[in-house]
Amino acid sequence: MPSNGVVDNKIHCHNVHLLENANDHLYHFGIDRVTTDIPKEFGDVKFVCTGGSPSRFELYAKLFSADSGLPLSENLSKTDRFCMYKTGPVLWVNHGMGAPSLSIMLVETIKLLHYAGATDVAFIRIGTTTDVAFIRIGTSGGVGVAPGTVVVSSGALNGELLEAHVQYIMGKRVERPAKLDQHLKDELLETGKELKMPVETGVTLCADDFYEGQSRLDGAFCEYKSEEKFVFLHKLYNEYNVRNFEMESSCFAAMTGRANAKAAIVCVALLNRFNGDQVNVDKEKYHEFEMRPYRLVASFIKGKI
Amino acid sequence: MPSNGVVDNKIHCHNVHLLENANDHLYHFGIDRVTTDIPKEFGDVKFVCTGGSPSRFELYAKLFSADSGLPLSENLSKTDRFCMYKTGPVLWVNHGMGAPSLSIMLVETIKLLHYAGATDVAFIRIGTTTDVAFIRIGTSGGVGVAPGTVVVSSGALNGELLEAHVQYIMGKRVERPAKLDQHLKDELLETGKELKMPVETGVTLCADDFYEGQSRLDGAFCEYKSEEKFVFLHKLYNEYNVRNFEMESSCFAAMTGRANAKAAIVCVALLNRFNGDQVNVDKEKYHEFEMRPYRLVASFIKGKI
Repeated sequence: MPSNGVVDNKIHCHNVHLLENANDHLYHFGIDRVTTDIPKEFGDVKFVCTGGSPSRFELYAKLFSADSGLPLSENLSKTDRFCMYKTGPVLWVNHGMGAPSLSIMLVETIKLLHYAGATDVAFIRIGTTTDVAFIRIGTSGGVGVAPGTVVVSSGALNGELLEAHVQYIMGKRVERPAKLDQHLKDELLETGKELKMPVETGVTLCADDFYEGQSRLDGAFCEYKSEEKFVFLHKLYNEYNVRNFEMESSCFAAMTGRANAKAAIVCVALLNRFNGDQVNVDKEKYHEFEMRPYRLVASFIKGKI
Repeated sequence: MPSNGVVDNKIHCHNVHLLENANDHLYHFGIDRVTTDIPKEFGDVKFVCTGGSPSRFELYAKLFSADSGLPLSENLSKTDRFCMYKTGPVLWVNHGMGAPSLSIMLVETIKLLHYAGATDVAFIRIGTTTDVAFIRIGTSGGVGVAPGTVVVSSGALNGELLEAHVQYIMGKRVERPAKLDQHLKDELLETGKELKMPVETGVTLCADDFYEGQSRLDGAFCEYKSEEKFVFLHKLYNEYNVRNFEMESSCFAAMTGRANAKAAIVCVALLNRFNGDQVNVDKEKYHEFEMRPYRLVASFIKGKI
């Protein structure tokens, strides 16, 4: 049952003011209800695949079209803020970096699919977590994750280590629960295993910056010691079951939940933060790594459509 | 005197760990210290002009090169995360949307200019505040700002209405003071007046999203009433001297302050939030509006170099 307690299969908007407007201009996509026949163009969408980089999502859309034989749309976004491609029931949209940028894309995509009357939609965030993948290097000798491991998130924590996304609305703090779909997570994990891919599940920590927020030692500013960093990473691993960092997960989980959509996050680890902070993967390996979550998700979707 | 109390004219990094590394890979620009002669390429930078959209910053850089006669570099960023152009002492970099994306760009630009040994650097954020510019429509008949007004920020508030940028570092809340350079603000305001441009100064509110965080009524979710929105906008106008919303200002002010750089924010208002929430400016007007902060800042910089 969706987290808001409503049992239907549609994409929900919770905003009575939308009924008052004859048109709605989805500003950051340059799409509006009057000039675009949204139900006709987007009514069949079942999967929204999203991630940070625009060129990566253009590439994924092209590959999926070639793999599946489904026709590829032109870039449906009329602005340079996001790109958007459609291959049959699968929408490919990038979200930029960080929760605020993601939130803009999600609000406008949720409105788009709500106007389209789309049903049974799943949002899947496909990413490279450019930090990540804690291997426990403590004395107990645990089972760790190596660079190249694909992490399917079981949950998401924000920077305060809460399973929530925090908004400030009219100056007041509002906490939204951040839950991912456990059944979808299990199915994706299973797909990864069938593909014989190095795959793991664990909690994802959503930071609001790439450096201090992820206890890196290589930013412009650093007021903590190397030892403190490792204490924190161990705490995340042991007490919170964290397996990777990125910058969108808690917002993604919270907002898709409010919209009555299923959601999952599949990110490859580019490095093991217990061994360093800089991303130093060579080009060929980088490309192979960044294709892994795509291959997993594409295989899963092809099995469903 | 810079906010950190240090009186010199260099760009500061406060991170002893940087000394331990032979190389440093500025991951989101694809630039590193070993393969790029950073002091030679960037040592002369005096102005960093930044804003959200990549194509707008490419355009601004081209125009400035044509206006000033200074040669235009190629795109110096090797990734699709940001673009970066150089015209003599002026760097043009986009920052995407929201504080997390901005923070990544700023950390890597601050490190770049620190390694370059650049001195007397000013960061100027040039933007269209796509919401904004409260005209007070209360019964006292105040002096308001109309669409097309250029707002030079006097200060920045975060979503909690604090003059601060909040970070979560190792799970703990850290507040950084967010102050802008008042002398630079006055000079920019003067330039706008000389150009006979509609220009104002006031506080800028930095929201973490475009919809609920800016009390819009047209998002996918809205749990407040129209009346509450207007009460809040009036409160911002009257009690906090707010004149516009955007999504980066408090992080921008805080982080440039830590780096010992001067900073200013110059944004055009695309609409008056007292009259609506949607951006419905026609194309020609939109283009004219988005050129105003560029024209102001370009004129100011040309007078300095």
